[in-house]
Amino acid sequence: MKQKISIFDSTLRDGMQGEGIAFSVEDKLNIVRALDDIGIDFIEAGNPASNPKDLEFFRRIRDEQPKHAKLCAFGSTRRKNIRPDEDANVESLLEAETPAVSIFGKCWDLHVLKVLGTTLRENLEMIESTVAYLKERGKYVVFDAEHFFDGCRANEDYAMEALGAAERGGADVLCLCDTNGGTYPTDIHKMTQRAVQQFPGKKVGVHCHNDTGMAVAQTLFAVDAGARQVQGTFIGYGERCGNANLSTVIPDLELKRGYEVLGKEKLKDLTATARRIADISNIWLPSSSPYVGGSAFAHKGGMHIDGVKKVRESFEHVDPHKVGNDRRFLMSEVSGKATLIKKIQKVDPAVTVKDPVVGQLVDKLKQLEFEGYQFEAAEQSFELVIRRLLGKYKEYFELEYFKIIGEQPLRAQEYPSSAIIKVRVGDESRITGAEGDGPVHALDLALRNALKGFYPSLEDMSLADYKVRVLESSATTAAKVRVLIESTDGKHTWNTVGVSTDIIEASFLALTDSIEYKLTLDEAQAPSRP
Amino acid sequence: MKQKISIFDSTLRDGMQGEGIAFSVEDKLNIVRALDDIGIDFIEAGNPASNPKDLEFFRRIRDEQPKHAKLCAFGSTRRKNIRPDEDANVESLLEAETPAVSIFGKCWDLHVLKVLGTTLRENLEMIESTVAYLKERGKYVVFDAEHFFDGCRANEDYAMEALGAAERGGADVLCLCDTNGGTYPTDIHKMTQRAVQQFPGKKVGVHCHNDTGMAVAQTLFAVDAGARQVQGTFIGYGERCGNANLSTVIPDLELKRGYEVLGKEKLKDLTATARRIADISNIWLPSSSPYVGGSAFAHKGGMHIDGVKKVRESFEHVDPHKVGNDRRFLMSEVSGKATLIKKIQKVDPAVTVKDPVVGQLVDKLKQLEFEGYQFEAAEQSFELVIRRLLGKYKEYFELEYFKIIGEQPLRAQEYPSSAIIKVRVGDESRITGAEGDGPVHALDLALRNALKGFYPSLEDMSLADYKVRVLESSATTAAKVRVLIESTDGKHTWNTVGVSTDIIEASFLALTDSIEYKLTLDEAQAPSRP
Repeated sequence: MKQKISIFDSTLRDGMQGEGIAFSVEDKLNIVRALDDIGIDFIEAGNPASNPKDLEFFRRIRDEQPKHAKLCAFGSTRRKNIRPDEDANVESLLEAETPAVSIFGKCWDLHVLKVLGTTLRENLEMIESTVAYLKERGKYVVFDAEHFFDGCRANEDYAMEALGAAERGGADVLCLCDTNGGTYPTDIHKMTQRAVQQFPGKKVGVHCHNDTGMAVAQTLFAVDAGARQVQGTFIGYGERCGNANLSTVIPDLELKRGYEVLGKEKLKDLTATARRIADISNIWLPSSSPYVGGSAFAHKGGMHIDGVKKVRESFEHVDPHKVGNDRRFLMSEVSGKATLIKKIQKVDPAVTVKDPVVGQLVDKLKQLEFEGYQFEAAEQSFELVIRRLLGKYKEYFELEYFKIIGEQPLRAQEYPSSAIIKVRVGDESRITGAEGDGPVHALDLALRNALKGFYPSLEDMSLADYKVRVLESSATTAAKVRVLIESTDGKHTWNTVGVSTDIIEASFLALTDSIEYKLTLDEAQAPSRP
Repeated sequence: MKQKISIFDSTLRDGMQGEGIAFSVEDKLNIVRALDDIGIDFIEAGNPASNPKDLEFFRRIRDEQPKHAKLCAFGSTRRKNIRPDEDANVESLLEAETPAVSIFGKCWDLHVLKVLGTTLRENLEMIESTVAYLKERGKYVVFDAEHFFDGCRANEDYAMEALGAAERGGADVLCLCDTNGGTYPTDIHKMTQRAVQQFPGKKVGVHCHNDTGMAVAQTLFAVDAGARQVQGTFIGYGERCGNANLSTVIPDLELKRGYEVLGKEKLKDLTATARRIADISNIWLPSSSPYVGGSAFAHKGGMHIDGVKKVRESFEHVDPHKVGNDRRFLMSEVSGKATLIKKIQKVDPAVTVKDPVVGQLVDKLKQLEFEGYQFEAAEQSFELVIRRLLGKYKEYFELEYFKIIGEQPLRAQEYPSSAIIKVRVGDESRITGAEGDGPVHALDLALRNALKGFYPSLEDMSLADYKVRVLESSATTAAKVRVLIESTDGKHTWNTVGVSTDIIEASFLALTDSIEYKLTLDEAQAPSRP
């Protein structure tokens, strides 16, 4: 019988304390949906006392309760020397009308005396009375024992007394927090075990931070010691170095340690959920993220690729499909010819390893990489490179010229940029103008408008993503930029790239690759079309 | 007497197997210098057999040997059924002329039989003969026992025999590699301990990967078990999810576990070295990186800031200065008024918490953040926001207009962009034109040229860094962009920001903030200047 571990996600509370993280109310609702869909048990969604935007969010979500997860409002124990019902912060916790609340209280005597400025006894009463008050009002109460491990090191008896106060108040979970992030995993294990033994029958939780780079290990060790609730943030961001990364902890617990967490089916949504949350948070999900990152199962070393093809488990510790991810083989100098063959044969199945064109392609790839191109996130641009080399390339249009004009200041209702472009297809030329929110936008609209006249299927095509990367930022405004574009026609999605010191030119190259790829796709499906 | 741990950095070998990582020969030389400067013991700098660029690098570095570190060339044991001196790959290891070599060999019977396709006995002879051959030629030999922990689980006797073969050959280090990254830290400890006990007096090393998010913990546990060489990459990138992050492991070992690694003085260069290597590698050092990240000691939650001010160790597990980093207090909705006061008082010391302007500034900040501004990496733009609100702002110039033109195709020796700008200072206007490598470059040159005529001190000013971030990438070419600029005049460095859907306008805003800040600095130093 597998042990069930409850997952408590604090993306919308602790996560918001990460640098550069900020959510609109709409963002928060979307994150709740994503977390609920994959089966997270508790969603800690804000601190109504500290941020009025959080109260607004709690009001909005009353109309759209999660199907599975319990929403949780976060706040402090009552202030010293007053009753819980006299404390406005505690009242705001109730106003949030969530099924669960998490309240943090001090367990470290140093903090009680110097930071709170109160007595050790009053602190215990603050904990017990606040927990009891919230229990009486029907809440599921998680007590966050702040600085529990540092508190244990300083004065273990007092730290345990603080847990005891929460237990007497009726807390449902005693969550041990390594608030500073500095406790060694074996110490986490030892002190968690003591807490579990001290309060048999009570659910113990753990909440770790990544200041020593070991939040995942600390969390797993606490579970080894008997913790059955795990707190973290879905993709790991949070105060300072972040929280325990749940997208790593969950598969570690489920696939490596034999616990029951989300279950096999929901686990397959792990990668998609991590990306969805990164998108909503407007941050980049590191490709090196365990399990869910783009590179997590990407094999580059030639030896590794050879090994994986022969025996899968020789270079993969789990099957990527279990977490909804995929195995990938990367191009580039280190991976050699074997990897490129597959991609070449997609264009021309007749090409073999011994063909001279393979060596030419390797050289071309190295030269382009030297110029700043990278095709790992722009596979369709690379396919066009292959096509040009193999002579399987059709020039669908020719650029006669474009001129982009950017101006400030603007007259009323005027766009900052306008573009004029002239393209040629066969014997026919066409000039189009467009205005846009910026020079790249204007160019994009003008180019596609000009070509739609020749190729009506471009009407189905739209851009889905646009990224810019400055390549040598110390070259400042003269630096090369790499533009990555994701495009779609509703059925397919494809990625293209352009590099230049001129962001307009870089965008133009990525856009033309995108259009050419779309037209190539169309041709493959209807070869009789001219 | 502290135990010394030897640090073995594989940024230039295993690191290169990370997705998106590629180095020129010049990059590699710069990374060697950075690693040598901070006192790394071994620098694994390439695989001469697999990449001709590596042999070129080893030739170049002969003229500039590291002062402290030992360079190390990496390669495989000899192929089956031939002698080491008949193996071209082994010969290329010697051609690299490094003081040390690391050779990897198989310890997992499955791999020997299915991937190498040879007998268990031949594999042992491959290991012993290659090690002995290299030792005879005066090399310091590190034996990388590939898949050691998986090999132990499958057939511990054979894995130990493989180590024994290397020991008989005279290997200086037996390095246990968790090549798949999937071994639990306690198992790493157990099997490392067995190896240490099996080969008393022989130095044991460890090499972990981050596939389960625990490479740092795995590494520390191996050291607990007696390993005395630690392999990783300086900022953690590498195959798949990366290698053990040395910028985390080193301070963990030195500051938390009491070992001797780099020493107190060199340790203070940790943060600067991590940033230097990230810059050379052209990647972004995550701000959440333990110890060295920009956010590692950045306090955002209002309670945390209040706590740290009162008792430093209450929210910091180590003193940031020991690793060359700094404590920071972040602005924004979560941190409240207390943090802003410090920044306001820098402009006007007379302002107190109760001043209504403080509340106005909080509102202004929230509104700007809502528009996409972030001031955590652009403190000087925020200072200008404060100045404008306090009426301590001087308008040094006014933009009459600018027009930027971007064109393709280009005539010979033509720049893709040109800019014309008209500025006014007092009663006088000036028009300037400039051409540039792109629209932002052209605008930058035109603007500063126009203003130098009015403010000669701008001659000292130059840009040091330029970054672009697309804010809502799903809005594609119409998306808002945030531009961050770092500027310097040789004495000071300052950071400014601009946001717009138009990259030209966003850059213009960041540039004008930068110029205004420079002129503000000048005025503060020589108040009599007009």
